[in-house]
Amino acid sequence: MATAVQRDESMFSVLVEIGIALTSENDLDRLLERIVSEARQLTHADGGSLYLREGEDLRFVVSQNETLATRLGPEGERALFSPFTIPIDRKSIAGFVAKTGQVLNLEDVYEIPEEAEYRFLKDFDRRNDYRTKSALHVPLMDPGGHVIGVLGIFNRRAADGEIQPFRPADERLIRAMASQAAVAVENAKLHKDIRDAHLDTIFRLSVASEYRDYDTANHIRRISEHSARIGSDLGLPPEEVDLLRYTSPMHDVGKIGVPDAILLKPGKLTPEERAIMEQHTVIGARILEKSSASVLRESEVIARSHHEKWDGTGYPDGLQGEAIPVQGRIVAVADVFDALSSRRCYKPAFPPEKVIEILKEGRGGHFDPDILDAFLDHLDAHAEIRARYEETT
Amino acid sequence: MATAVQRDESMFSVLVEIGIALTSENDLDRLLERIVSEARQLTHADGGSLYLREGEDLRFVVSQNETLATRLGPEGERALFSPFTIPIDRKSIAGFVAKTGQVLNLEDVYEIPEEAEYRFLKDFDRRNDYRTKSALHVPLMDPGGHVIGVLGIFNRRAADGEIQPFRPADERLIRAMASQAAVAVENAKLHKDIRDAHLDTIFRLSVASEYRDYDTANHIRRISEHSARIGSDLGLPPEEVDLLRYTSPMHDVGKIGVPDAILLKPGKLTPEERAIMEQHTVIGARILEKSSASVLRESEVIARSHHEKWDGTGYPDGLQGEAIPVQGRIVAVADVFDALSSRRCYKPAFPPEKVIEILKEGRGGHFDPDILDAFLDHLDAHAEIRARYEETT
Repeated sequence: MATAVQRDESMFSVLVEIGIALTSENDLDRLLERIVSEARQLTHADGGSLYLREGEDLRFVVSQNETLATRLGPEGERALFSPFTIPIDRKSIAGFVAKTGQVLNLEDVYEIPEEAEYRFLKDFDRRNDYRTKSALHVPLMDPGGHVIGVLGIFNRRAADGEIQPFRPADERLIRAMASQAAVAVENAKLHKDIRDAHLDTIFRLSVASEYRDYDTANHIRRISEHSARIGSDLGLPPEEVDLLRYTSPMHDVGKIGVPDAILLKPGKLTPEERAIMEQHTVIGARILEKSSASVLRESEVIARSHHEKWDGTGYPDGLQGEAIPVQGRIVAVADVFDALSSRRCYKPAFPPEKVIEILKEGRGGHFDPDILDAFLDHLDAHAEIRARYEETT
Repeated sequence: MATAVQRDESMFSVLVEIGIALTSENDLDRLLERIVSEARQLTHADGGSLYLREGEDLRFVVSQNETLATRLGPEGERALFSPFTIPIDRKSIAGFVAKTGQVLNLEDVYEIPEEAEYRFLKDFDRRNDYRTKSALHVPLMDPGGHVIGVLGIFNRRAADGEIQPFRPADERLIRAMASQAAVAVENAKLHKDIRDAHLDTIFRLSVASEYRDYDTANHIRRISEHSARIGSDLGLPPEEVDLLRYTSPMHDVGKIGVPDAILLKPGKLTPEERAIMEQHTVIGARILEKSSASVLRESEVIARSHHEKWDGTGYPDGLQGEAIPVQGRIVAVADVFDALSSRRCYKPAFPPEKVIEILKEGRGGHFDPDILDAFLDHLDAHAEIRARYEETT
């Protein structure tokens, strides 16, 4: 007796560890895979699957199968996976569990009693020459009692490899784990939602800032992609590349403060007008200043520094060389490339050869030579970005 | 023997429940209180405290004491709490735990051996006529092994009320709980950081959108506060009031698309100019359209509908009565109040009596009568908002 209880105690402390591991995973996709693999390990299950609720349906999001992974290799197993949805009703095992909130612990899915409302879907077994036998399905229920998904594990392997039914102790553990998993999934979704909202708001700020002068959305996407690509080719860490993607399009937010008569003037600007135009760097930094959000802090830096030049002849601060923040030096190349390639109220679009020629003339003068080289070394990639987000006007 | 193990097993399943409860709490302050109260309940501790790391210091953030709460009432106990920071070094108990990552389980804090580096700070006991005796302090350690805070509980009460030392089993439980708590705290902080970044970005979008015409930041804060206050006085649910606070300042984002010659014209607009000016509602909705973020979806609604009038004579859709979204009807009152009370390029600031008179004339014509009444019934509150965010130019 004591041994069974002791095993349970150690299982529960494992469960506490699993809870910690799951809740510290904020990436939803990785989290979902992890839930299934932990459940399988806890119970020695050969396979597992996970469904998430989407309105009145369940979406099949994770499939793991040790036997098939061994037979086909991890790539081959992954290729088998094709997402689908099934309705939340009593006709399928997962649907039944989601609909009723009940656990289904079946000894053999091919011997479901006639009177049961649900049926086992044999497609997977048929297609993959597999035989599912024992299966344990539990609802993922949030603390409010709402089913947010279904976790299924199948074919529990005894030490000798024989397939056995899941035991009551497995059922208790997987139920407890499913509650932890449900909270972790809700957290990761919430996290994703706020992050998406934040990034979307940044995008709208960029759209608003370019509204008066350019073919807005595509211009923003190009600056974003060119800058991120240059950053990545320079070997910046992925978080920094990602940040560049969101911050670079805000470089001209200060143009909001430049009068139409100057911003939209077709001809050459007078020195006085030019001085006012150049203020857009300072105004932009002012709009974005002193934020506690890293995205806005970096945007402030870019707004202020993207017109500085490598040789110190830029504005507003006349910074030189590496005193110019690297993000500003990157956006300078992306922005000039885009401006030269596009039609503006004061100039036509230049042909690609002419654009490259002008950029090269600025090597070490206007532009950081290393950054310009990183750009020129991957011209194909940048041409592809440009083609993808072509002018619509 | 079996009974001790069984108690441990049930303790571990309690711990799984606590982990779920903690990780589903996204509000940082409530979470911190909950961590301390759960730890106290698990171990029958009379008191508890929590410190969070801030750089090289620990900030004291939660204090709970059952004896003092009974003696002084919950209000009185809370009044005792004053936040302070202590350095992370070996001189205090919490500092030592944070510095070394070790658990300190002390039988009597007044009998710390001379050779120990840390000392018990007696201030709390002296000030409150309390006697701290047994104390268990554990580090809050994230999965990467970084100490993010310290949880302390003290004076474990036996069934007869006597103060006893914390047992090894208590120590194991509280250590395990502290790991769960650390992840929950990290999640809640991350959640707060992204949320703050999102709201800050929204604020910048509002600033940018008003940059050309108004005394920006204060105008935005006024519209935000007036609108939220009206919503609250109308009895909208708190989430909706909160949403109004962030969405209302974006109502004029479309002015970015209105030429200076019209937006900044000192005199009366011609009918053609007026038609272009009115397009700011449509442009604003276009800048914000089709977002998956609720804040931007509501902002889109407000941008489009804040110039509709209750009698159907507004623009751009000529909606009438309750066909106008309630947020648009609320912002209409806040916006007109603010415009009348402020100096604009085409008019002086009107005195308060004149403002009220004009608003009243619009009751049932321009304005939803119920919403106007909700505003007029709390004029003092709105005058206070106006005074707080006065024009600076």
